Amino acid sequence: MTKNDLTGDKITGGKRNSSKNGYTVYRKVNKKTHSKAVKKPQESIKISFLGGMNEIGKNMMVYEYKNDMFIVDCGLAFPGTELLGVDSVIPDFTYIEKNISKIKGLIVTHGHEDHIGGVPYLLKKFRIPIYSTKLTLGLISGKLEEHGLLKKAKLIEIAPNDKISLGEFNIEFIHVNHSIPDAIALAVSTPTGVIIHTGDFKIDTTPVDGDMIDLAKFAEYGTNGVLALLQDSTNAERPGYTMSEKTVGESFANLFRKAGKRRIVVATFASNIHRVQQIIDVAKQLKRKVAVVGRSLENLVQVGEDLGYLNVPKNILISIDNIKDYTDDKLVIITTGSQGEPMSALTKIANGDHRKVMATPNDYVIISATPIPGNEKMVGNVVNELMKRGVEVIYENMYEVHVSGHACQEELKLMMGIIKPKFFIPIHGEQKHLQRHAMLAQAMGISKKNIYVADIGSHIAINEKEIKTLEDVESGEVYVDGIGVGDVGNIVLNDRKHLSADGIIIIVATIDSISGDIVCGPDIVSRGFVHVRESEELINSTRDLARNVIYDTYKSKNHDWNTIKTNLRDEVSRMMYERTKRRPMILPIIMEL
Amino acid sequence: MTKNDLTGDKITGGKRNSSKNGYTVYRKVNKKTHSKAVKKPQESIKISFLGGMNEIGKNMMVYEYKNDMFIVDCGLAFPGTELLGVDSVIPDFTYIEKNISKIKGLIVTHGHEDHIGGVPYLLKKFRIPIYSTKLTLGLISGKLEEHGLLKKAKLIEIAPNDKISLGEFNIEFIHVNHSIPDAIALAVSTPTGVIIHTGDFKIDTTPVDGDMIDLAKFAEYGTNGVLALLQDSTNAERPGYTMSEKTVGESFANLFRKAGKRRIVVATFASNIHRVQQIIDVAKQLKRKVAVVGRSLENLVQVGEDLGYLNVPKNILISIDNIKDYTDDKLVIITTGSQGEPMSALTKIANGDHRKVMATPNDYVIISATPIPGNEKMVGNVVNELMKRGVEVIYENMYEVHVSGHACQEELKLMMGIIKPKFFIPIHGEQKHLQRHAMLAQAMGISKKNIYVADIGSHIAINEKEIKTLEDVESGEVYVDGIGVGDVGNIVLNDRKHLSADGIIIIVATIDSISGDIVCGPDIVSRGFVHVRESEELINSTRDLARNVIYDTYKSKNHDWNTIKTNLRDEVSRMMYERTKRRPMILPIIMEL
Repeated sequence: MTKNDLTGDKITGGKRNSSKNGYTVYRKVNKKTHSKAVKKPQESIKISFLGGMNEIGKNMMVYEYKNDMFIVDCGLAFPGTELLGVDSVIPDFTYIEKNISKIKGLIVTHGHEDHIGGVPYLLKKFRIPIYSTKLTLGLISGKLEEHGLLKKAKLIEIAPNDKISLGEFNIEFIHVNHSIPDAIALAVSTPTGVIIHTGDFKIDTTPVDGDMIDLAKFAEYGTNGVLALLQDSTNAERPGYTMSEKTVGESFANLFRKAGKRRIVVATFASNIHRVQQIIDVAKQLKRKVAVVGRSLENLVQVGEDLGYLNVPKNILISIDNIKDYTDDKLVIITTGSQGEPMSALTKIANGDHRKVMATPNDYVIISATPIPGNEKMVGNVVNELMKRGVEVIYENMYEVHVSGHACQEELKLMMGIIKPKFFIPIHGEQKHLQRHAMLAQAMGISKKNIYVADIGSHIAINEKEIKTLEDVESGEVYVDGIGVGDVGNIVLNDRKHLSADGIIIIVATIDSISGDIVCGPDIVSRGFVHVRESEELINSTRDLARNVIYDTYKSKNHDWNTIKTNLRDEVSRMMYERTKRRPMILPIIMEL
Repeated sequence: MTKNDLTGDKITGGKRNSSKNGYTVYRKVNKKTHSKAVKKPQESIKISFLGGMNEIGKNMMVYEYKNDMFIVDCGLAFPGTELLGVDSVIPDFTYIEKNISKIKGLIVTHGHEDHIGGVPYLLKKFRIPIYSTKLTLGLISGKLEEHGLLKKAKLIEIAPNDKISLGEFNIEFIHVNHSIPDAIALAVSTPTGVIIHTGDFKIDTTPVDGDMIDLAKFAEYGTNGVLALLQDSTNAERPGYTMSEKTVGESFANLFRKAGKRRIVVATFASNIHRVQQIIDVAKQLKRKVAVVGRSLENLVQVGEDLGYLNVPKNILISIDNIKDYTDDKLVIITTGSQGEPMSALTKIANGDHRKVMATPNDYVIISATPIPGNEKMVGNVVNELMKRGVEVIYENMYEVHVSGHACQEELKLMMGIIKPKFFIPIHGEQKHLQRHAMLAQAMGISKKNIYVADIGSHIAINEKEIKTLEDVESGEVYVDGIGVGDVGNIVLNDRKHLSADGIIIIVATIDSISGDIVCGPDIVSRGFVHVRESEELINSTRDLARNVIYDTYKSKNHDWNTIKTNLRDEVSRMMYERTKRRPMILPIIMEL
């Protein structure tokens, strides 16, 4: 029995829209029910998870009701170190392709790469209208322009409290706090029930951009009855509350004063407009100019200023080319590279490779970020290199110079408490985040059977009674390398891995196809294996072995090229392992005259 | 003016040994001075830093006084991800080679890889006697045996409070606490003064192996005057005290009870005998059998039991092959893989690849370690995979299931406070650790000019007046790959990096050396670039381009092979970048008929 069953459909059925006209006895009850009386059993709402489950990144989901579908987010993931040479990873769009006629639109919750990074690749294949807030659309536009897709894109600007219809779906946008302005949650209404999809969020009672998350709206939906809640799991492992972004501003004020007459350099995420705003605010108080380095950060400042999300006082921003015109005590430099990314401005400054900014002992560097798991070593290297140049560096948890953009356990529980969903689905996280989040939901009284931990490709149907698991949909990872999308797969990656570990030995020979004589070669060429000049003896032995293998194989009965190649590969490989304990790739190339 | 100057050498000169005979007015003064009256200015003590500075790993230092030298530790470092295919990194031994006639011995402070891992490579080149404690020598012996070096090695067992002479050096060994038993610090006495070298240590008032660090001995040296302190910087960033190893035992007792009837699996560092002891102790109380998986851990248990460092009750250890004979509630499995290492037992169990242990929802896994920076992602993956199998996993700081083996800030300061050195040199750490440690020393009243932050290759001379920087000694990293030591250098690594990012395209052609005609080929072979079957058009274009380049170059004036190769490389590379935005390695092989 569901919560809605308790309200007595039959009395209130069909009066759903009457509540706007005045107060009636049934008003409250009305809101809790939908057109259930019309049709039983109801259609289920289906959800497919195309990304963001069991991973951090490339968030993408599809909502389906009868013949209508819409997508929420289309992000990218940054490749792990095992994806050699891959630039980024996007979701597999096969399921979209199969259902393109039903897709009514793409709704984007906010402008981070893991929610918008896949959009250009989606629009290259399909014409889908995009619904999002002003800043998010501004950031998407920049990407589409780079890919030459902006002109034919259909972008529809929406704002919190707006409601749109996509087929049978009615969707209301709800303001949430996050580490980028203009983030929204969705309330997805269907005749079967309401689903709340939080997107990335936190509860910030004193946000930099003014408005606190619209808890009243969530509460209203909660009061009226919510079928399912899909909630951001990123910080589900962290107890307590996430601090307000404002605390970072206070830390900046203290640290900037501590810097004294030194030049201040602050590294932060390129997308964090609030952080940039706070740096500019404190710089202004201390009468310092602000210069920005790093392409992505320069873009953000431009977009943020153009669209009115960044309040930049006159004459405070200077070009990085002009920092030489000011003494150190009059400067703040904002830079990319807070994750120690090898090609970022801060890493170049630390290594003495930056063309415009040279680190000196008169610098005071604040790394305003926490390393994302996997980046700790790179961030540590940047700190070490800066320190070797005599720079004082404020990093990690030395002061409150960074706060997360995601809700911690108490916030997650608070949201569950006011939304009171029947079903709960943790989204956006690795298994450990999803499971921790599921445990929190149980602690809030949601029964285990009403919690669904999804995977990439999971496909479910939700109605008032249950969450039913359907057959998985096509899903997976598509690798972007250069301009190639999907042309790098497992074979290529395995080759790259093999090549990276032990290099390659190429054996080339030209053979007279009639006599079987070797007319040229065999030549031995290696790359990434050993320094050839110092390993002449080994290379000579390889040549002798190859010559013998070719002759022996030719003399035998099976002297086709494939047998020669296989024998060469096996014999040379064996010798190499015996003599070096390494397994380079062996590539025989036999040319026939 | 130094501390010793204050004691008035001239009165006490020559009476240095009289203090043993009875109490005299000068006794205390005596101990503080050395043979200063005999000779002025004194010889300096020289130290060269061959590893462990500006890095975590491959610790190795050389002490020198007049014509005598000895080495402290000879470790290895685990290669960073940028060192593709490299198995381990050892120090450059050039400086040892140049001074081999002066080297009186190698003293090893304890049995961890970053202190003993380079020993076999050192002994392969030089005959140097090794001084260390029983367990450390036991672990070194295992390594030497593997390398076929044990028979000709000279191993001298020492114990805390033992004193040895190496040339003009007198060295006393001092018991310290660490995450492996039998760790020692050194008090290195010379006529110029005493140097305390802590090695890795922590202050554990309730250690598992019985004795607390010998603070009284350090205090005695401190009272008598210490010229310089070289101290472990690993945890210099961490405030407070490191917890006692005993707290982990208490956590185990609680968690093992929580496990109920489930099978318990504990992952820990393969070298942590104390941890293994505590697991065995708790298992015994709960009447569970203990099985060990992972070669390094099996070795440790063997060595630990053989040498008496591990107290194993009868009939508690069972072979991993026999776990099927016991129900889950009667088992504890101790495994390697606490850092998520790809080839470790725990990773294989998590991925379902282990031949003998299969994870089920009736498992309770405790990861008894903190991820070393850089390993967070790998550990997270193991946790995720175990959870997908329904396993409950205790990881990171959920309970006190791990404590560090290194002293935190308050311990470091305490040691400085009782040793009262004139000079301070932080050792064993990256720049950020060394600098933080230097700041602690300043906070303890050691003046900045008396603190020396060294680098790899630094060479210094210490006397009572100053630390003087000498010209750097030869130093660096030597890569071990398979059985090759030093044959992989930057050229090979750069090739591996290039190959790993975009793969390789090989262009082979056989040319008639007289006519210039192409008699065979050009053939295009690629690996790790694109999936060839799906890129036929690109490969065909490459072949056409290559043919044209060869003919055009041959027709021109400069048709030597090098020009042909260079042109091929340039032209094909250009085309590839234009069409794919990738830069595969282009390798032309021209054979001449």
